[in-house]
Amino acid sequence: MSLVNLAEYEVRARESADGSTLDYYDGGSNDEITLRDNVTAFNKITLYPRMFRGVGTRDTSTTVVGSSARWPVIVAPVALLGMLSPDGEVPAARAATATGSIFVLSSLSVTPIEEVIAMATGPVWFQLYVYKDRAASEALVRRVEEAGCSALELTADTPILGRRERDVRNDFDLPDGLWTPNLTADAGSLAPHTGSDSPFKAAIDALFYPDLTWDDVAWLTSITNLPVLIKGVLRADDAVRAVDAGAAGVIVSNHGGRQLDTAPAAIDALAAIADAVGDRTELIVDGGIRRGADVVKAIAMGARAVQIGRPIVWGLVVDGEQGVSDVLGLLRDELDLAMALTGCRSIDEITSDLLRPG
Amino acid sequence: MSLVNLAEYEVRARESADGSTLDYYDGGSNDEITLRDNVTAFNKITLYPRMFRGVGTRDTSTTVVGSSARWPVIVAPVALLGMLSPDGEVPAARAATATGSIFVLSSLSVTPIEEVIAMATGPVWFQLYVYKDRAASEALVRRVEEAGCSALELTADTPILGRRERDVRNDFDLPDGLWTPNLTADAGSLAPHTGSDSPFKAAIDALFYPDLTWDDVAWLTSITNLPVLIKGVLRADDAVRAVDAGAAGVIVSNHGGRQLDTAPAAIDALAAIADAVGDRTELIVDGGIRRGADVVKAIAMGARAVQIGRPIVWGLVVDGEQGVSDVLGLLRDELDLAMALTGCRSIDEITSDLLRPG
Amino acid sequence: MSLVNLAEYEVRARESADGSTLDYYDGGSNDEITLRDNVTAFNKITLYPRMFRGVGTRDTSTTVVGSSARWPVIVAPVALLGMLSPDGEVPAARAATATGSIFVLSSLSVTPIEEVIAMATGPVWFQLYVYKDRAASEALVRRVEEAGCSALELTADTPILGRRERDVRNDFDLPDGLWTPNLTADAGSLAPHTGSDSPFKAAIDALFYPDLTWDDVAWLTSITNLPVLIKGVLRADDAVRAVDAGAAGVIVSNHGGRQLDTAPAAIDALAAIADAVGDRTELIVDGGIRRGADVVKAIAMGARAVQIGRPIVWGLVVDGEQGVSDVLGLLRDELDLAMALTGCRSIDEITSDLLRPG
Amino acid sequence: MSLVNLAEYEVRARESADGSTLDYYDGGSNDEITLRDNVTAFNKITLYPRMFRGVGTRDTSTTVVGSSARWPVIVAPVALLGMLSPDGEVPAARAATATGSIFVLSSLSVTPIEEVIAMATGPVWFQLYVYKDRAASEALVRRVEEAGCSALELTADTPILGRRERDVRNDFDLPDGLWTPNLTADAGSLAPHTGSDSPFKAAIDALFYPDLTWDDVAWLTSITNLPVLIKGVLRADDAVRAVDAGAAGVIVSNHGGRQLDTAPAAIDALAAIADAVGDRTELIVDGGIRRGADVVKAIAMGARAVQIGRPIVWGLVVDGEQGVSDVLGLLRDELDLAMALTGCRSIDEITSDLLRPG
Repeated sequence: MSLVNLAEYEVRARESADGSTLDYYDGGSNDEITLRDNVTAFNKITLYPRMFRGVGTRDTSTTVVGSSARWPVIVAPVALLGMLSPDGEVPAARAATATGSIFVLSSLSVTPIEEVIAMATGPVWFQLYVYKDRAASEALVRRVEEAGCSALELTADTPILGRRERDVRNDFDLPDGLWTPNLTADAGSLAPHTGSDSPFKAAIDALFYPDLTWDDVAWLTSITNLPVLIKGVLRADDAVRAVDAGAAGVIVSNHGGRQLDTAPAAIDALAAIADAVGDRTELIVDGGIRRGADVVKAIAMGARAVQIGRPIVWGLVVDGEQGVSDVLGLLRDELDLAMALTGCRSIDEITSDLLRPG
Repeated sequence: MSLVNLAEYEVRARESADGSTLDYYDGGSNDEITLRDNVTAFNKITLYPRMFRGVGTRDTSTTVVGSSARWPVIVAPVALLGMLSPDGEVPAARAATATGSIFVLSSLSVTPIEEVIAMATGPVWFQLYVYKDRAASEALVRRVEEAGCSALELTADTPILGRRERDVRNDFDLPDGLWTPNLTADAGSLAPHTGSDSPFKAAIDALFYPDLTWDDVAWLTSITNLPVLIKGVLRADDAVRAVDAGAAGVIVSNHGGRQLDTAPAAIDALAAIADAVGDRTELIVDGGIRRGADVVKAIAMGARAVQIGRPIVWGLVVDGEQGVSDVLGLLRDELDLAMALTGCRSIDEITSDLLRPG
Repeated sequence: MSLVNLAEYEVRARESADGSTLDYYDGGSNDEITLRDNVTAFNKITLYPRMFRGVGTRDTSTTVVGSSARWPVIVAPVALLGMLSPDGEVPAARAATATGSIFVLSSLSVTPIEEVIAMATGPVWFQLYVYKDRAASEALVRRVEEAGCSALELTADTPILGRRERDVRNDFDLPDGLWTPNLTADAGSLAPHTGSDSPFKAAIDALFYPDLTWDDVAWLTSITNLPVLIKGVLRADDAVRAVDAGAAGVIVSNHGGRQLDTAPAAIDALAAIADAVGDRTELIVDGGIRRGADVVKAIAMGARAVQIGRPIVWGLVVDGEQGVSDVLGLLRDELDLAMALTGCRSIDEITSDLLRPG
Repeated sequence: MSLVNLAEYEVRARESADGSTLDYYDGGSNDEITLRDNVTAFNKITLYPRMFRGVGTRDTSTTVVGSSARWPVIVAPVALLGMLSPDGEVPAARAATATGSIFVLSSLSVTPIEEVIAMATGPVWFQLYVYKDRAASEALVRRVEEAGCSALELTADTPILGRRERDVRNDFDLPDGLWTPNLTADAGSLAPHTGSDSPFKAAIDALFYPDLTWDDVAWLTSITNLPVLIKGVLRADDAVRAVDAGAAGVIVSNHGGRQLDTAPAAIDALAAIADAVGDRTELIVDGGIRRGADVVKAIAMGARAVQIGRPIVWGLVVDGEQGVSDVLGLLRDELDLAMALTGCRSIDEITSDLLRPG
């Protein structure tokens, strides 16, 4: 029997995958409070549907920082997604772009950006960490531009990796021979692992540059014509700083509950940010989206689109490219139905009165 | 031993009926959040009883859009209620009208409206969906008028059927040979089922007209002298539109948690609607009523009556016509006692100070 | 090992007593929501203790409507308390008065008021229901006055008995040969039991006068010099009516969650009543007190004393007179300690700033 | 495998230690509501992290009432901590001071203050109860000064010991031959134990002076040049009194949920106190800190440092001095990481906007 919703994919993935590997994707930091809040916060939001709006046909298409998409759901950058598939990130990228979803490739992919682009049938974005070697970082931007990416997501929330205790208990490390081909040879060296962190965390912390400031963001936006989105903003003042630094968009995210535990649920942080910069930039919410109605809620609250990560992992684990496609298809059908039931014929008609009717 | 309250009927019905069939009635859409909220929202409302009000005799009688009733509880339209009884909807209609309850027949009944009216001993209303064939819809209104119905309930919240995941898992379909005799031959055709919906949902979606607007509501109220109630309103602005379109009443309802999940609990949506149109129309609350005190709460908050659906199903499953009669009798006794204990001798004395005493 | 707190007495009583009989005392009406809220509402109230107040000696003594007591805890009227003891209500009355607690005898006692008074060593009050026969009611008042009671509690909240579903399921009835000697022969007749109520409820409903009004309260206060307290008030307006009708005190109570379910927790109803009439009458809170700190909370919120019922039942079941004495002793020690820890040397020093410090 | 967080130490300690002894440390008073609230209150506080703050290096050092510390975490005074170790309080004191934590020795230690100071490598404070014999109390202050302590913590919240029901059930008493060498021979006598308290509580209550007032606090601050902190304040008015009486600091604490049950969680009491006296004194929060992010929350809310008690007990039980060191190391790493992830390079940068961003 085919699976009925994303939660069933979560359960099925847990039954299918190696526990330690899936823990890497499913886990959050510390007590996983923010991890859980991301999902439950959506469930607590009430939608007030409009009646008799002539909703026989619905159009879910939109654009996000200039990229066209058949619906406002973006496949989030997931590190090492290719670890789950012999074909690397290609199956996920193919499934995403075939369904009209924007696909964001992580810096830490196992497939080179050029191969992903070649196999995709729609816009691909690239997620960027900045390395201790600044020249390596700039070289990576150039490579991404030439590969044909449509936008950059610069991750803000990871000067150091969060402490995901499942990984510490599992002594999680990368499988042998798997490293990320988007990194140049001189991006930095992998430190030997000591202490109580997972080997993976130790490796990452040795690599990333933890001293970034908003001046560095301004530098990044100045050296590229690609739209740059800042990923991991949870405060209105930081969103203002992002826009002032030239960002084309802000991704409201707590990194899936994997960085600072007890940070706010992503959707709960959105309203204040939309109030502050909603008219100056495009907002994306990332974290906890499991239902079509969640997409409606995010957009009604001021987002232009949402990003999903873990459901993609589950789809990939359960049935490879087809699984990713099925997950996206289920969510797309749910969004279409939720639009019909709330009285919205297009994305533009998803407005804030659905949350606070007059 | 006889059953003590409606919750016991719920449990007994689950023990007696075919699981897949009962799931059709008991289930809600998606995560069933609204389904549960409908009930728990009533439990969270506090009643502040008045003392020494001379409550030796109580009178529960009332009228709703001109129909007289011995108490303010209406039997909600339940699709295919007759699926549970060899005599179709007749046992439920007889039990309801014999206890002085208004009975509402669903468009999707297995017994023709004329037969139901013939066997009933009190007011019968008719619930209406509008079909893709407009002439068929108008013909149905004429037929209902001639049959002697006292009012029409037009369902607003179902341009497309909600996705009830229990039905998808159960591959729920209608039993062979059972279809709804209130529909004319040209009302529409049943589409073959494809995709991930239940066969039942696929059939319904092929039939109903999803493009209704408030103009169509005005059209409907203009072609009949029957009072028309709009069922499935959850926003004050839509309630104003309903009244402006000629509706005689508004039914505050989320379709028993079966359409948009995370819509507000019915009783939680009532207050704002009562503020907006309480003096211009009659309001009915539908969803989650399980106790006599719930009826008091709804009326204190501005409703003229309530509708109950699932408890009727449970009564019918447990003991046919007698079971429906017993369910209604239990609830009637509870309402009578709740009126005595709150200091109300009549429905008019159920006022808002019971919720917010001065 | 001796029991450590009142909750342990509750558990031990359940292990010792006949389930059906204990259900009569422990149960509440309908879903028992108010029953549970009575207790949990106290737990949710925060006390802000004062430091360095020289609390080496504490004095818990007080007076309530003129009766002296060694502490502000009153043993509530419990119907048929003597059903649990071969010596009727005497053991409870002896234990209560020996510990300096005011004892309130229920109208529905198995021991005549005269015998209880004879065995008590402190103030005894009498709880009154008004019967259908008014002359019988007046005669009962005269008898109580002559017996030497110090005050009357008139129950307001029971025009009809609440529906306690445990009793319905248990088909609860009085043991043979046990009836209440405080009732005169012509107080009313016991109706034969029919329908879905418990036999006990049917008998009570046949006896009590359900048509009382505030004029009847004024009549009662006019025919006696005893202070009259109105028991079962949950609204400020009713408390004003009680004072206007001559009441010397108001007992904020929902009858232990046994009458209207979803009525407010007793302690949650107190503040508004204290605001309205706190300077004109004495307030008692009844329902949910299980800890010495609960007594501090009630007094800080405006009560002069509290009443406890079920813990007395548990003590009586566990160890007769000694058990009641032990329960009261435990609670007394807890109150004394809570006063020391909050910085209160006397009952007068238990003030509202403990709840909302400046 | 080494333990991953403080909660794992709690579990491991429970597996390792004698249940009755560990109950003495882990338990709270009465229903342990405040005990649980201390921890859960921190989990409910949301941190809004700042991005791109150049957090490559962090400095956790600070001073508290003049004592230097490598981080703002103080080892709370724990009575009889030495009961868990053949070397008394020395292992805990050594581990604490070696990690740069201030160590506070309890009056009720099993090791004399002089020995503890001799083995410590950083500031040691002394916690003071005042005994019935005032001269003994003053002599103790002189002894502590001469031993080289850097500050005094005067406990405010224990005029009488709270009733910890685990101890009553366990009949908890001190092991033979173990008594506290900081007490002079004439400090008071141990009363024979009677009644329903634990032997330990009876002994303590016989010893402590319960009639302290704020005048006694002023006397204490007048006779010593050491900074005096008042431990156990939960109200702003008492904090003002403490400052007026000459206190150099106020420790916001409910004694780990061991005194008045339903007192506020320590962190929940902080904000009002910081508003009242935050600019006139130094504040320490004690109770419920289990995560590095909790330290950030306390400081953001106005504390200068926090105290931890039970995690030290768990570390000591699990692995002696090394266990204490490991517990402190884990928490130190968590604080360092939480500072990086919230965008704080120093303790000064932990400001209130992390709780309420502009």
